[in-house]
Amino acid sequence: MKTLTIIKIGGNIIDKPEELDLFLEEFAKIDGPRILIHGGGVMASEMSERLGIKTQMHQGRRITDLETLKLVSMVYAGWINKSIVAKLQKIGCNSIGLSGADADCVPAVRRSPVPVDFGYVGDVDPMQINTGFLLSLLGKGITPVFCAITHDRNGSILNTNADTMASSLAIAMSGEYYTKLIYCFEKQGVLSNTVDEESVIPLITASSYKSLKEKGVIKEGMIPKMDNAFYAIDNGVSEVYIKHASNLGNDKGTVLK
Amino acid sequence: MKTLTIIKIGGNIIDKPEELDLFLEEFAKIDGPRILIHGGGVMASEMSERLGIKTQMHQGRRITDLETLKLVSMVYAGWINKSIVAKLQKIGCNSIGLSGADADCVPAVRRSPVPVDFGYVGDVDPMQINTGFLLSLLGKGITPVFCAITHDRNGSILNTNADTMASSLAIAMSGEYYTKLIYCFEKQGVLSNTVDEESVIPLITASSYKSLKEKGVIKEGMIPKMDNAFYAIDNGVSEVYIKHASNLGNDKGTVLK
Repeated sequence: MKTLTIIKIGGNIIDKPEELDLFLEEFAKIDGPRILIHGGGVMASEMSERLGIKTQMHQGRRITDLETLKLVSMVYAGWINKSIVAKLQKIGCNSIGLSGADADCVPAVRRSPVPVDFGYVGDVDPMQINTGFLLSLLGKGITPVFCAITHDRNGSILNTNADTMASSLAIAMSGEYYTKLIYCFEKQGVLSNTVDEESVIPLITASSYKSLKEKGVIKEGMIPKMDNAFYAIDNGVSEVYIKHASNLGNDKGTVLK
Repeated sequence: MKTLTIIKIGGNIIDKPEELDLFLEEFAKIDGPRILIHGGGVMASEMSERLGIKTQMHQGRRITDLETLKLVSMVYAGWINKSIVAKLQKIGCNSIGLSGADADCVPAVRRSPVPVDFGYVGDVDPMQINTGFLLSLLGKGITPVFCAITHDRNGSILNTNADTMASSLAIAMSGEYYTKLIYCFEKQGVLSNTVDEESVIPLITASSYKSLKEKGVIKEGMIPKMDNAFYAIDNGVSEVYIKHASNLGNDKGTVLK
């Protein structure tokens, strides 16, 4: 079975042009087919401040009213997505920027307004992902670059969490490929001591995750990320990595199995 | 030879949600393959005002500094492009939003800074357009929806005039299809009297265009539009229409041959 590498990058790399360039060079060198998913970075917050749009959060997740939906679609699907594609084209990686609406790649269901109304936020069912179109792109050697915007098939785009977008794509593609899902984030990996970058836990299994949570070693924002990762493993993804974007070319970081 | 319909819409329709919906319904009904190219509308100007970015124009064309490039990529490639795609998906027209950077569809050359430095503005050579990828999309029944953003193959996106984007795509595709290029704009067609919407000139040929220009009937902003249209005809496009978007389903308007 051929390997497909699916990588999610976030603000910590998107916001640093030189590090982003180095990352994209490593990304372009990956052997075999690959998919990139990017989040937003500080630009969305900066723009929303400049435009006087109030950022509303609930438990670390953005509440997306119509103004915010316009904003995130502009920043994510517009500037960031097309900038990344143009940079990849320069280094010979033929890529295509996509939202979930494009070619109906990733339809989503607008989240129930109960108990918290997150607004224009979409949840993805991996079974609904249009793998046929993605397979045809990969078959032509074209690399999909996704922003975390989906659509409801009823005329509206939706804002989707980039981590779940990445895991959903990885799950959907795992029927066709040996799928490696790599979450790049601001630390070297999952740390046993959050202030010590050397304390990377090299391997976490479902049972060690449970015990790390109980001990409070893994907490807060890491929990949804880890839950996402294990959900992916439980649903067909072969390997999940959590690492710093600068280590894409080496084996530093945490692997989840 | 199969007919391909290529339609360009501008701000006058993009800015009116109900008229846009009606237009897209007619667009979705077109028999055979089709491509949509959209301009920007007032949103770019509104956003640039809210963000305090000065709009600099030269002879009706925007000068694109880096701040403006970010702005137009956000508005055109982000919100407008993805909104149109989501609307088309709703009415059963499987579409894909593209910039010229995506799959290297439409590379461009940054315009010389002499005599006027237009900034990040790209001019398109129809011969460089990646028709193979577009043919494969059309062959799958997927409708490309282009914003007028291109790239320089050197890592930067570029702002491109939407009228020339449309004519370049029509020229490039005319080797494979009988190509109809339709410019939708704010009037019923080319008017012999600009204040009389009933004065549509039904047919303009290269020679009648020359005489209409000499008499001053066609002037100012219409001249680049008409030049574009005749350039397309001279380079393989079969028919060019200039009409109001609300008349997509009927034969009102001006045809250029």
